Amino acid sequence: MKAFNYLLSCSLAASFTLLATTSHAQEAKGWDRTVRTADYLEPAIPRPAQEQTAADRLREFETRTGRKPNILILLVDDLGYGDLGAFGGGAMLGAPTPNIDKLATEGLKLTSAYATPVCTPSRAALMTGRIPARSGLTRPLLASDHPTKNPWADEVSAAKLLSDNGYVTGLSGKWHIGEAKGMQPQDVGYDEFHGFLSVVSEYTQYMDSRKYSQLMLDPQRLETFKSLSEYNGVVEGKKGGDLKIVYPLETQKQMGNVDQDFANWSVDFIKRAAKDNKPFYLIHAFAKVHFDNYAADGYEGRSPAKLPYRDAVVEVDDIVGRLTKTLQDAGQADNTFVFFTSDNGPEEDSYPDSGFTPFRSGKGTTWEGGVRVPGIAYWPGMIKAGRISDGLFDLMDLFNTSLALAGIKDKIPTERYIDGVDQSSFLLADDGQTSRQAVFSYNQAEFSAIRWENFKGYFKVMQYDQPFSNISMSTFSPVGVAPWIFDIYRDPKERITRSNGDYEWLYGPILQLQTQHAATFVKYPKKDIGLGIGGGGDPK
Amino acid sequence: MKAFNYLLSCSLAASFTLLATTSHAQEAKGWDRTVRTADYLEPAIPRPAQEQTAADRLREFETRTGRKPNILILLVDDLGYGDLGAFGGGAMLGAPTPNIDKLATEGLKLTSAYATPVCTPSRAALMTGRIPARSGLTRPLLASDHPTKNPWADEVSAAKLLSDNGYVTGLSGKWHIGEAKGMQPQDVGYDEFHGFLSVVSEYTQYMDSRKYSQLMLDPQRLETFKSLSEYNGVVEGKKGGDLKIVYPLETQKQMGNVDQDFANWSVDFIKRAAKDNKPFYLIHAFAKVHFDNYAADGYEGRSPAKLPYRDAVVEVDDIVGRLTKTLQDAGQADNTFVFFTSDNGPEEDSYPDSGFTPFRSGKGTTWEGGVRVPGIAYWPGMIKAGRISDGLFDLMDLFNTSLALAGIKDKIPTERYIDGVDQSSFLLADDGQTSRQAVFSYNQAEFSAIRWENFKGYFKVMQYDQPFSNISMSTFSPVGVAPWIFDIYRDPKERITRSNGDYEWLYGPILQLQTQHAATFVKYPKKDIGLGIGGGGDPK
Repeated sequence: MKAFNYLLSCSLAASFTLLATTSHAQEAKGWDRTVRTADYLEPAIPRPAQEQTAADRLREFETRTGRKPNILILLVDDLGYGDLGAFGGGAMLGAPTPNIDKLATEGLKLTSAYATPVCTPSRAALMTGRIPARSGLTRPLLASDHPTKNPWADEVSAAKLLSDNGYVTGLSGKWHIGEAKGMQPQDVGYDEFHGFLSVVSEYTQYMDSRKYSQLMLDPQRLETFKSLSEYNGVVEGKKGGDLKIVYPLETQKQMGNVDQDFANWSVDFIKRAAKDNKPFYLIHAFAKVHFDNYAADGYEGRSPAKLPYRDAVVEVDDIVGRLTKTLQDAGQADNTFVFFTSDNGPEEDSYPDSGFTPFRSGKGTTWEGGVRVPGIAYWPGMIKAGRISDGLFDLMDLFNTSLALAGIKDKIPTERYIDGVDQSSFLLADDGQTSRQAVFSYNQAEFSAIRWENFKGYFKVMQYDQPFSNISMSTFSPVGVAPWIFDIYRDPKERITRSNGDYEWLYGPILQLQTQHAATFVKYPKKDIGLGIGGGGDPK
Repeated sequence: MKAFNYLLSCSLAASFTLLATTSHAQEAKGWDRTVRTADYLEPAIPRPAQEQTAADRLREFETRTGRKPNILILLVDDLGYGDLGAFGGGAMLGAPTPNIDKLATEGLKLTSAYATPVCTPSRAALMTGRIPARSGLTRPLLASDHPTKNPWADEVSAAKLLSDNGYVTGLSGKWHIGEAKGMQPQDVGYDEFHGFLSVVSEYTQYMDSRKYSQLMLDPQRLETFKSLSEYNGVVEGKKGGDLKIVYPLETQKQMGNVDQDFANWSVDFIKRAAKDNKPFYLIHAFAKVHFDNYAADGYEGRSPAKLPYRDAVVEVDDIVGRLTKTLQDAGQADNTFVFFTSDNGPEEDSYPDSGFTPFRSGKGTTWEGGVRVPGIAYWPGMIKAGRISDGLFDLMDLFNTSLALAGIKDKIPTERYIDGVDQSSFLLADDGQTSRQAVFSYNQAEFSAIRWENFKGYFKVMQYDQPFSNISMSTFSPVGVAPWIFDIYRDPKERITRSNGDYEWLYGPILQLQTQHAATFVKYPKKDIGLGIGGGGDPK
């Protein structure tokens, strides 16, 4: 526990006094309201009243239904914060999203949900509850890209813990956290997997001879590229078994329809679990809306915008509608906690056929545009309809929260640092507030920024040479004398920082958070799996 | 009527053929679907089916209630498109807006409503249905700023026509369209006026001796400044009478509470009209959220953001809640058409204590950030709840639409050009679509840009030397060889134009619209009231 009043910041004695007198049963006061209950757990803000409410509500659920809740995570690839109607987009962008908006209006809309800046780390964090610098999964793994060390050898996914404790666990769609044996979904906790191992553009590179002419029209390059992966197609695997290719992905038409295939599989998974009367944990990970977006049958020109990306948004929304309807039809709507989100901000190297964020920059950066994602928690009867909260939520909180909803928080492993926080009381109590003090953003393995309350403090910033090339033309630089501090209520686009002026009072909290966070790496060092732990593709 | 297929664009014969065969009773086809029913009326898109629906609905209303509907226009000053929860802001910015959001979710949310770039022209356009270049009211009128010619001498406000035809008309709050006798609200159509003649910052300049020290601490300057206006306070007037000062505005506390005063007056106005069983037309024009925002009693720190601007947004939202409750309590909720909007984009010279737009730039420019405003049409039982439309709506359409709702469209004067379009069928039919073909944006008296469908074509652009100084450090320059064309579905922030590439096909429609629009000034020239008709403050 920290004392954030920076008049006290040099006074260890004062801090310890606070530590001694604050227990988890009290609402903590002061700058730092968090309590660290164990070395290996991220400190959380104690909220005794809402924690009691949530516990009562979960107990009541189990008593009434005689079962554990299902958990359905809907994870879109590269969807922008502003793409959805409920988050300011939708019709405004020529792509209405009524099904997803309905989840928001009938559930809890989270306006400060955070992911990491890119796909692989974001998914790894969501599944392990750990900052990618700790798991080693710090950057996207492409087709030729096998880490020296299997990061999953000593990582534990929520899926594994749930599978070990009465859940049937599934992953539908995109994996992208390792292609090698031992790193595949069915190796790391998923009872069933149906999807593909990589990312849309790794396949579409050999599907579009106009866009990728220099690869596709050179037979030798093409052969080499395709040989990099054994699994150029939709694959399936069952726990402990080997992957089999269901069908190769070879054409734009196949890729266009792949989300329909994933949706079919998820519908079947949900129905089977319902029939077997087993609680399920399903991550439905869309292939879309990552570039290149080819239209599914019947979706070309379906959006009022008549654009490939927007057509894809409309398809994603339809699939969300289909999956929620499946829950209803299977009698599971009231038994299922649904969480909708995106893995990072909109990808802008393919701008302008990409997503929309009202914030600065996009995917690949730690600016708000890169890491702030739409978040919706939906559970009829358990999460009050129409709630909106700007409370902090990190996607890695889904690790702890899923285990809490399943009643197995005690299974969280104790020998590694867990950055996730249990947010079940935030989500379930009618007036719940976040249990998370701060969000820490990284570029690969390098620390970049802190979001605390409505402030963002940067220690290293992503800069880009060209306006929309957040990934391919960016550099990562330390700031000058002082952190750059932005007030994202006043300045949501992060255009003006006056750290040394109006916001000087924020040095205390921001620097203390940084120090405390850095301290966790002393006992729990970063893991090196051969991708470079220093960031920037450091070849070690 | 125009034929927009640019293969046909040189063929007058083809155009005339279309003109001859298209009547108002048919759905028109092709690029240009508008029909011009009279020289002096802006052409509109014929929508016979929805026009019938709207007419039936209005007739049914009058039969059922035996009366005309009330019209309540809620006009906030300098509110940003993105400030409201329903438009992507609210809780995200630390200022929830539940009352306004409720109007949106229970009414029609317009995501493409347009104003002019600054206060005075925007209000003049809303009231007269005419582009400011025609009325001469092209820029804000400040305290010392009396035009040579009274623009109102030959302008006709909707209020006047409604007052002449059975309505009681009122203006509550900010006027800002002329201080001289003959230009005051009670001179130009309002039966009752309670508010102030200018704009918040013209008063606060003599209320804050720290911010405006160079004016306030120099007695001679201060005396001169204050003598510029006879009316440094809240004033009242009745049709045909003289203004009287209700109380001088002298302190921050008075200014902080001025919107509460205006709200009290509007509540009383609504109650009186209800008691007299008279239909009313009331423009409730907030003083807030124009800088400087002093808190009303009890509002300091009321927003979660704890910022003056955000506290003001919360107060505005509360007042909207109070006014809609007044309608209910007075039995007028079902009898009242409510329209909520802002007069322009967020003011950014006072950044960062100002509003939020997800779009490019802000107040004072013709970029989307300057002219795109939140629009909500709400009328229980008459406008279907939960509608969202990206159809074009220009605030000057409220002129024609108000007259249409009151059943006096035939009173529209015929000897001047009316740029507004009757949007009653768009708003009232359950699946109504816009009747407006395009929005034309001006900087003062100079034409700048066209919005057509989801495209924006610029002929002159506003450029700014400093990032947020849209008004005080901007210049207005013609574009190069070709219009700058933006696709605002694909690129809502207007960051990339490829007019000569992907969007070359848009030259036809955009240039034809420009030509057609310019042609209206041949018969109906710009009016010169001594503010300069060329724009740029041209002293003539």
